[in-house]
Amino acid sequence: MADKTKVCIVGSGNWGSAIAKIVGFNAKRLAAFDDRVTMYVFEEMINGKKLTEIINETHENVKYLPGHKLPENVVAVPDVVEAAKDADILIFVVPHQFIRGLGTALLGKIKPTAVGLSLIKGFDVAEGGGIDLISHIITRHLKIPCNVLMGANLAGEVADEKFCETTIGCRDMKVAQIFRDLFQTDNFRVVVVDDVDAVEVCGALKNIVACGAGFVDGMKLGDNTKAAVIRLGLMEMIKFVDVFYPGSKLSTFFESCGVADLITTCYGGRNRKVSEAFVTSGKTIKQLEDEMLNGQKLQGPITAEEVNFMLKNKNMEAKFPLFTAIHKICTGQIKPQNLIDEVRHHPEHMQTF
Amino acid sequence: MADKTKVCIVGSGNWGSAIAKIVGFNAKRLAAFDDRVTMYVFEEMINGKKLTEIINETHENVKYLPGHKLPENVVAVPDVVEAAKDADILIFVVPHQFIRGLGTALLGKIKPTAVGLSLIKGFDVAEGGGIDLISHIITRHLKIPCNVLMGANLAGEVADEKFCETTIGCRDMKVAQIFRDLFQTDNFRVVVVDDVDAVEVCGALKNIVACGAGFVDGMKLGDNTKAAVIRLGLMEMIKFVDVFYPGSKLSTFFESCGVADLITTCYGGRNRKVSEAFVTSGKTIKQLEDEMLNGQKLQGPITAEEVNFMLKNKNMEAKFPLFTAIHKICTGQIKPQNLIDEVRHHPEHMQTF
Repeated sequence: MADKTKVCIVGSGNWGSAIAKIVGFNAKRLAAFDDRVTMYVFEEMINGKKLTEIINETHENVKYLPGHKLPENVVAVPDVVEAAKDADILIFVVPHQFIRGLGTALLGKIKPTAVGLSLIKGFDVAEGGGIDLISHIITRHLKIPCNVLMGANLAGEVADEKFCETTIGCRDMKVAQIFRDLFQTDNFRVVVVDDVDAVEVCGALKNIVACGAGFVDGMKLGDNTKAAVIRLGLMEMIKFVDVFYPGSKLSTFFESCGVADLITTCYGGRNRKVSEAFVTSGKTIKQLEDEMLNGQKLQGPITAEEVNFMLKNKNMEAKFPLFTAIHKICTGQIKPQNLIDEVRHHPEHMQTF
Repeated sequence: MADKTKVCIVGSGNWGSAIAKIVGFNAKRLAAFDDRVTMYVFEEMINGKKLTEIINETHENVKYLPGHKLPENVVAVPDVVEAAKDADILIFVVPHQFIRGLGTALLGKIKPTAVGLSLIKGFDVAEGGGIDLISHIITRHLKIPCNVLMGANLAGEVADEKFCETTIGCRDMKVAQIFRDLFQTDNFRVVVVDDVDAVEVCGALKNIVACGAGFVDGMKLGDNTKAAVIRLGLMEMIKFVDVFYPGSKLSTFFESCGVADLITTCYGGRNRKVSEAFVTSGKTIKQLEDEMLNGQKLQGPITAEEVNFMLKNKNMEAKFPLFTAIHKICTGQIKPQNLIDEVRHHPEHMQTF
């Protein structure tokens, strides 16, 4: 019993709770894992009762994933140190702004042999500007290796057990097999690749491209143009990884974390939607965040800004005309109507094999 | 003057006429090309007047691309031999069922040094079953090399001069440059690759995948599942090319002919639409073709059948579970509701790097 792998889910929002259904199910089912899966829940009061108590009594996260039963072996714990202290696998699935604080809270309080897995999409801003990968922050703060899981995985549909795929980026083959066992179900299909950084970077950069797709939708430029902008976005994603996180394989961009997540985000998704409204309403991104997202920040424009900082530093804006144009549009430096002129003579159109 | 490159467009439908706008514009503008571009027009009477006469007098293909002026240097010719006889470049853009007949008509009547370019999407059925690439048919019949142009190029949007990309597959670098010059405009952006067969095969296989996307839409399985089916379709497209037309580069599938055209077809497009109706209405494909397409045949199911013939011959159905399932659904062997069960344990989900 003592050598069973113990799992802790750090986070309990919509995505964290959806994943808890899967992880709880597999931990219970598979002999290699300890049945008991702890889930760190930021405590809040719901109608006079603690959320952790509600979850542990009713097995439902009534606030973030109402209508779904969590497996009874998933135990909500309000203290993150308590939740994480015995875990061999730490699954991080909190909003990215909380990750540094959690790192500080957990340092030295977890098993030194623990392995991390980040499900957190988006970058953090590095000191001095540019992007900082969440998995890198976790490794730096907690001194543990950190892998990632990303894909075309809208949380609600995963919770509904609709069929989908996901990508795990993991450098260690032995750990990869454990992760696959922990996550794979008949409806949640796992592909493991070793390009950890590329997998994570895709999950952030796609939001920039989705802004471009939204602008195209807002201007009603049609299907061909939208397909071209999405494709050029994918080419810039690949190039960005090549420049800043070199060594990845082209095939990784064909995984769920790459092309599939990009498609979903560029046809559905809030970045596309708000960007479309940006064109049709003439309002600022800030105004639309207030109106459409209850004041939450849109990820695409922030990522575009940090990416632009890195490109400027390398004097490479001209090699990424789509990312650059989207940043300039989001910050009011150029109009959405200029988007196509900015990508018309894209480096992609200059090459012959 | 004598050494200027002469161009003939064989075909004058919607796509042929849209392309005639571009080719006519560039031939006139660029010194390397003869101004006069011939366009073979299958003669028909429109309100008592010959279509070729209407086109040559009004410079509008009132039947297939009404509302658009063709360049005045594009000359409609009702006799294909007359149209093609002096051409250095023959652009084929007719429905694929006419290509063999045209080949017979043109054999020995064209310049032996002429080079072909096929814009024809879809396969032809090979003798004895399986698929026969249109460019291969042209080469066999006319004894000339034949290249291809494919991409996310809805004809109406190209005619409207909306921004888009296209892919030219061409093995000969010198010819590639000529093709690029002939097609590239500010709004029609060309990327040339040397994987001719892969470019052409993408344009046919995408229609199978679009049927799968349509079934998913009809069953309302959501965005994650649709993204997974499209991605698995892309993986099977790559694998199919690898098995039957080996030697292509992975990067070719990132071009407009690959991922971009696939996306457009799986979100718009008639194969998706009819396949969705197949699920929601319970009617047969044949009934829906009669009702939704004026009796025209849907390309996806035909391609799925020919592909299935090839896969069966190689005993490889199990390696292509999505293509196989779509074929079985189109032919009533299984229900659309079985689609996901058929791809749940896809070979893609079995690999670890």
